[in-house]
Amino acid sequence: MTEKPVLHEYSASGNCYKVRLTAAHVGVPIERREYDIMKGETRTPEFLANVSANGRIPVLQVGDRFIPESNAASFYIADGSALIPSNAIDRADMLRWMFWEQYHHEPNVATLRFWKKWLGFDRLSEIQRMQIPMKREAGEAALGMMNKHLEGRDWFIGDSISLADICLYPYTHVAGDADFDLEAWPNVTAWLKRVASHPRHVPMDA
Amino acid sequence: MTEKPVLHEYSASGNCYKVRLTAAHVGVPIERREYDIMKGETRTPEFLANVSANGRIPVLQVGDRFIPESNAASFYIADGSALIPSNAIDRADMLRWMFWEQYHHEPNVATLRFWKKWLGFDRLSEIQRMQIPMKREAGEAALGMMNKHLEGRDWFIGDSISLADICLYPYTHVAGDADFDLEAWPNVTAWLKRVASHPRHVPMDA
Repeated sequence: MTEKPVLHEYSASGNCYKVRLTAAHVGVPIERREYDIMKGETRTPEFLANVSANGRIPVLQVGDRFIPESNAASFYIADGSALIPSNAIDRADMLRWMFWEQYHHEPNVATLRFWKKWLGFDRLSEIQRMQIPMKREAGEAALGMMNKHLEGRDWFIGDSISLADICLYPYTHVAGDADFDLEAWPNVTAWLKRVASHPRHVPMDA
Repeated sequence: MTEKPVLHEYSASGNCYKVRLTAAHVGVPIERREYDIMKGETRTPEFLANVSANGRIPVLQVGDRFIPESNAASFYIADGSALIPSNAIDRADMLRWMFWEQYHHEPNVATLRFWKKWLGFDRLSEIQRMQIPMKREAGEAALGMMNKHLEGRDWFIGDSISLADICLYPYTHVAGDADFDLEAWPNVTAWLKRVASHPRHVPMDA
């Protein structure tokens, strides 16, 4: 990496935390640039024209290249490190959990967290309110699937921490913010402690 | 690749087509095993225990390893080929479009297609029906973002077809099934023709 990457972020976002956590594990220094999404700072014409066309964060800037999508930005930071398995089937298995996270976990667990802590359940639109039960059910199913997969395993793939663990940790460890009961999933809580006690771990609010 | 991978699939699914299209481009022979999702064949106790714990397809089987998630399975097939750029920033940019596809495109364009052609709009639940306008708007936004990105570009990243194009093609080329008007997006329709005229292309129903 020849230039110091710039992370365009909102630091309370679990998606942004993924990129910082990856950088901490790999030992890559990054520059952080904070935007207040609640004030629309990522929806300004300047942000849309220069940083990301759909106004979403995080975006990782490397020179004149901009990489949106948290898991892609994290992959860039981790590329070539031990966080990404060197054999093809384990690498695909790692990506499998990362795609799974974006499809089955984040839209449920993270969205409910945002709706509850940022918007407030009582301020949701009717269509948002109607989706709460189905997002809760899908979020529970996601946590249950993690719990089942972690039975007898320390990490999501192989014998050491990988980018799959790092991308699954951020929204899982704050699932309580959206009233998910993590104590119901003992393998998940044991794994959360394992990730948090890694010597290179950094907390979300660091 | 030492063993011939087995694709557990429902062939009309765009997600399954991604894996076949990747295999055609790379020249990797795969064995296909068809399940009728409308008859619940991926929700049997046997499928859930032996193929995939959440009953979703595609799943790529390589020996005793099972890789769910279409984009992860496609990555495995393409790994080491020219479909995956050799430099880190382009590789991340490719993954960016693949994560974007699963988050912003598939849940809208593919879900509306499934609801219309398989379930039938008149047979949806109330909560599904209420989501149609927001999924249509998000699907239009996704197609619009693709159209804008393709302005002056032949491919999603770099100067040749990559796994990003292959993973974006399947649900985009059948967006009309869900009443999206592709003619409104000329860069997208030109790109669709470009993908389809590649010498290694195979159609969805092959």
